[in-house]
Amino acid sequence: MKLLLKKLVDQSREWSEYGNVASYIPELAKINPDDLGISLYDIKKNEIYCAGDSGIKFTIQSISKIITLMLALNENGEDEVFSKVGKEPTGDPFNSIIKLETYSKKKPFNPMINAGAIAITSLIKGKDNSEKFAKILNFFKKISGNNKLVVDNKVFKSEKETGDRNRSIAFFLKSLGVISGDVNDVLDLYFKQCSIMVSSKDIARVGAVLSNGGVAPWNGEEIISRHISKIINSFMVTCGLYDGSGRFAIQVGIPAKSGVGGGILCSVPGKYGIGVYGPALNRRGNSIAGIEVLKKLSQELDLSIF
Amino acid sequence: MKLLLKKLVDQSREWSEYGNVASYIPELAKINPDDLGISLYDIKKNEIYCAGDSGIKFTIQSISKIITLMLALNENGEDEVFSKVGKEPTGDPFNSIIKLETYSKKKPFNPMINAGAIAITSLIKGKDNSEKFAKILNFFKKISGNNKLVVDNKVFKSEKETGDRNRSIAFFLKSLGVISGDVNDVLDLYFKQCSIMVSSKDIARVGAVLSNGGVAPWNGEEIISRHISKIINSFMVTCGLYDGSGRFAIQVGIPAKSGVGGGILCSVPGKYGIGVYGPALNRRGNSIAGIEVLKKLSQELDLSIF
Amino acid sequence: MKLLLKKLVDQSREWSEYGNVASYIPELAKINPDDLGISLYDIKKNEIYCAGDSGIKFTIQSISKIITLMLALNENGEDEVFSKVGKEPTGDPFNSIIKLETYSKKKPFNPMINAGAIAITSLIKGKDNSEKFAKILNFFKKISGNNKLVVDNKVFKSEKETGDRNRSIAFFLKSLGVISGDVNDVLDLYFKQCSIMVSSKDIARVGAVLSNGGVAPWNGEEIISRHISKIINSFMVTCGLYDGSGRFAIQVGIPAKSGVGGGILCSVPGKYGIGVYGPALNRRGNSIAGIEVLKKLSQELDLSIF
Amino acid sequence: MKLLLKKLVDQSREWSEYGNVASYIPELAKINPDDLGISLYDIKKNEIYCAGDSGIKFTIQSISKIITLMLALNENGEDEVFSKVGKEPTGDPFNSIIKLETYSKKKPFNPMINAGAIAITSLIKGKDNSEKFAKILNFFKKISGNNKLVVDNKVFKSEKETGDRNRSIAFFLKSLGVISGDVNDVLDLYFKQCSIMVSSKDIARVGAVLSNGGVAPWNGEEIISRHISKIINSFMVTCGLYDGSGRFAIQVGIPAKSGVGGGILCSVPGKYGIGVYGPALNRRGNSIAGIEVLKKLSQELDLSIF
Repeated sequence: MKLLLKKLVDQSREWSEYGNVASYIPELAKINPDDLGISLYDIKKNEIYCAGDSGIKFTIQSISKIITLMLALNENGEDEVFSKVGKEPTGDPFNSIIKLETYSKKKPFNPMINAGAIAITSLIKGKDNSEKFAKILNFFKKISGNNKLVVDNKVFKSEKETGDRNRSIAFFLKSLGVISGDVNDVLDLYFKQCSIMVSSKDIARVGAVLSNGGVAPWNGEEIISRHISKIINSFMVTCGLYDGSGRFAIQVGIPAKSGVGGGILCSVPGKYGIGVYGPALNRRGNSIAGIEVLKKLSQELDLSIF
Repeated sequence: MKLLLKKLVDQSREWSEYGNVASYIPELAKINPDDLGISLYDIKKNEIYCAGDSGIKFTIQSISKIITLMLALNENGEDEVFSKVGKEPTGDPFNSIIKLETYSKKKPFNPMINAGAIAITSLIKGKDNSEKFAKILNFFKKISGNNKLVVDNKVFKSEKETGDRNRSIAFFLKSLGVISGDVNDVLDLYFKQCSIMVSSKDIARVGAVLSNGGVAPWNGEEIISRHISKIINSFMVTCGLYDGSGRFAIQVGIPAKSGVGGGILCSVPGKYGIGVYGPALNRRGNSIAGIEVLKKLSQELDLSIF
Repeated sequence: MKLLLKKLVDQSREWSEYGNVASYIPELAKINPDDLGISLYDIKKNEIYCAGDSGIKFTIQSISKIITLMLALNENGEDEVFSKVGKEPTGDPFNSIIKLETYSKKKPFNPMINAGAIAITSLIKGKDNSEKFAKILNFFKKISGNNKLVVDNKVFKSEKETGDRNRSIAFFLKSLGVISGDVNDVLDLYFKQCSIMVSSKDIARVGAVLSNGGVAPWNGEEIISRHISKIINSFMVTCGLYDGSGRFAIQVGIPAKSGVGGGILCSVPGKYGIGVYGPALNRRGNSIAGIEVLKKLSQELDLSIF
Repeated sequence: MKLLLKKLVDQSREWSEYGNVASYIPELAKINPDDLGISLYDIKKNEIYCAGDSGIKFTIQSISKIITLMLALNENGEDEVFSKVGKEPTGDPFNSIIKLETYSKKKPFNPMINAGAIAITSLIKGKDNSEKFAKILNFFKKISGNNKLVVDNKVFKSEKETGDRNRSIAFFLKSLGVISGDVNDVLDLYFKQCSIMVSSKDIARVGAVLSNGGVAPWNGEEIISRHISKIINSFMVTCGLYDGSGRFAIQVGIPAKSGVGGGILCSVPGKYGIGVYGPALNRRGNSIAGIEVLKKLSQELDLSIF
């Protein structure tokens, strides 16, 4: 397996030159676009295989959306969560605000677009923001099996300073009654969860939990219910890669969530959790070489769920 | 299996009273809203199990979209087809025209919305409309294993007479250059393919082909390639049930395509093809009791792919 | 006055090189982009002054929208007409279809966009299309004081062949119940009214009727009521120049209606009717040198109504 | 004139019962819906005529948009101002955010919608917010000839507390680069200018300046240039009454700007400035009895500019 991963990384790395590192957050623009790494956690063998730049740390960005969603579902239950956020994919960009105005239900279409993810973060309970974030970070640590996760404060500050579009979305949600409480506090939490640093190994382990019905394969702990793991997997298929989700479902066929930090988390139900890191992004904001390596891996191991 | 199906049909039938038979096509309004039937084709055992009103004929409607798409992919190849129609889900209603005007790519978002399906139908080759439709009908016969399929001419006429919204969509596509040729001919073909009469058994067999990698399990013939079967399955997950696709993925977790005639076709990869018929529809245009019976079946047999 | 007009035409003609002749209708692309002519009808002196290419014939195009609207108001009354079409400007392009889908009232925003104008044309009564068009043409003749007006059949055919976007709009209107009757007949009427040939003198006389409260200054006949003349003048201000109407109100300040044939009709209430012809269009579809000459004329004679 | 005004107020007052006082700002909901008053400033006689509740104070709300626009044009010039905000009417509601995302120019359509007005307020120069607001208030005092104008602090606070939709708009503008500086400061200024208390007399005098080419008729001072007065008058016609502007142009035919406080300011070029107060609003947010009294007055005195 390790050899296969290495071969695929080597074959895919050159694709990075067709992509660009995210620039809307200044801090993100400083990284090496040619990095490419992959980690695969085999839940039956309880082993992790790595290749390439699998140890490099990057900010988790939108991949955090599914993790905070799991925490919110654990805490609030399905009914409460989906009274605030819908379940349907949308063809609009991740930062679109249009449907909040036009859609008769006046709630975000799904938890994967920014509007939905901000609403989900606002559901996390706690007496103040630091208690809330401690809870979020602890959950990230538990589900990734890595209790050393920390926030990249430079990226956090950078997101905060340049986050006016997200601020616009959050105040719109507030005006609709989708989020309550202080908008700036909610955004601080959201920007912070996006700035947690992970490696491809960390997200491979999160993927392993999802592919294992919610149970951490390394210690047998049920972190989320089997039902919630299915909810997350299905969101990843219908809207995990922004407006490139449909294409990815055809090409790769694995539940996955990407982030503009360059990461892609995958869950192959019953088999593997996979983490990929490749910071050069395509037009839709997904890792260009990362998708390439996953496409090849899916073909080699026949991983498509379709 | 037969007993299980019967039990689930009995338990789900009462849900029909919360739905309504499609009324936008006058002919469709004449059917009995309480009908409910299911057929399940087991591709390993090569056997079909039925319960309830599994033999009642209904018009295939939007389920035809995936069948004509398979034929178009067979004839034209993936590149040609997806130069005309995209691969992404859209949060808009099935008959929306907005994105044709606003989306920079000027093509339908996917082949499951009406705009995309009409574009797909326009790709079928033939010297005239009757040759084209003969080809379509033959393909429907082959993939459903039923060479007695016919068009319900009353429904066809009814669709044609009330199809102004589809006409509007088709002329917009023509103005964008997405379809060429005579618009009224294309619409005739489209309305005709929607008016083909099937029973739940027929669509269960189509689902069986899809779940079997493109090979008809009853005679071993490869009707579409394994790759095309994956394309279809992934479209069914991301946009097979209109703007209820995301919810269905969570609740049922099976690639499926619905039609306003009351049918739902399902493909459980590697296992079953399923056909359901229940003409009472929910607000989104999907069979309300049909979804209910599939939800129960998915839980009983653990069919979710997620 | 004649000298002033000549001076302004000479000063403005060079602006044509920054514009382009309409190309979406092939026939329109054949004309000389540098033509520029103006006619001014003084309703007090009952005299017409001309300069430049004031005698060149061009197709009336969208300027016909206000004339058919007058006829429809005469025939059907204000209540009937505005039950089908609204009164508000819209920031969308003239051929936009979006608001038909999103706007809760399900009718075109105003009679100046294509959707509204097609709906207005559908209100003209008659036993068949040729009777209806005869009525339209007669009204055009009467209000322009030119009983020799004819249709340019090449342009009419060209519009018909390339009018798929308008066809899309018309079938959408039909599906909403805004227009009844045969869509192709309505479009034939609409394309024909757009293809009537006029010179700047003809539209200056129409403008003179509007500036004179509905009475033809040359023979004292009341062609439309004073109230209808105010309706038309106000539509011309709020939406007479497509999405350049607001800019024109500031720059020129005169009720006006433009057409992609290169004409602009103006009504200076109580004073003048003005017709301009200059086929080189700006990005918004308005005569670029025509606007320039009107801007200068408005300043010289202090014509702004604001 | 005084008798005429009294008669029209008496005839129109009953219309109030078909409207509702604005409720989105809690403080606004406390006023008496049946109030109706009018003031008319005759710029030739230099006299003001009043009838009904012409002395009642109300918050100026959106009428402030045209006054701050005049100040911004005075300070920054036309080119600078219209590089940030467009000139075209839009068919969307006053608080719509959609076109900021979809419109290729990425600036508000005009200064009369909230997005445009907030952008205009952000252009006012000053070393800090209190200097800026002092400048705004002084300009309001000068142009209304009332140096006793003050802010209603309760309304200001109320607007600030409930202004999340405006906050959403402002942060969107910031993300587009349309406004710079601190968003909360800009919004404070904007909410404050909306909370200035005026009577119908005050806004009649502002209207008088506009109808008099920018010169205050009471002391001959040129407050704005003649050109700017025309810009304001034309904006009032094309988009002064939200999405009721087109209808008002037909019914009344006078440049006017309304506010949800119940005021309507009118400018009859060369003749009168008019202020109306009637807090019961129609669905579009315009004074229902106020429009009625203006409709009757326009007919009696033949005030339509069309």
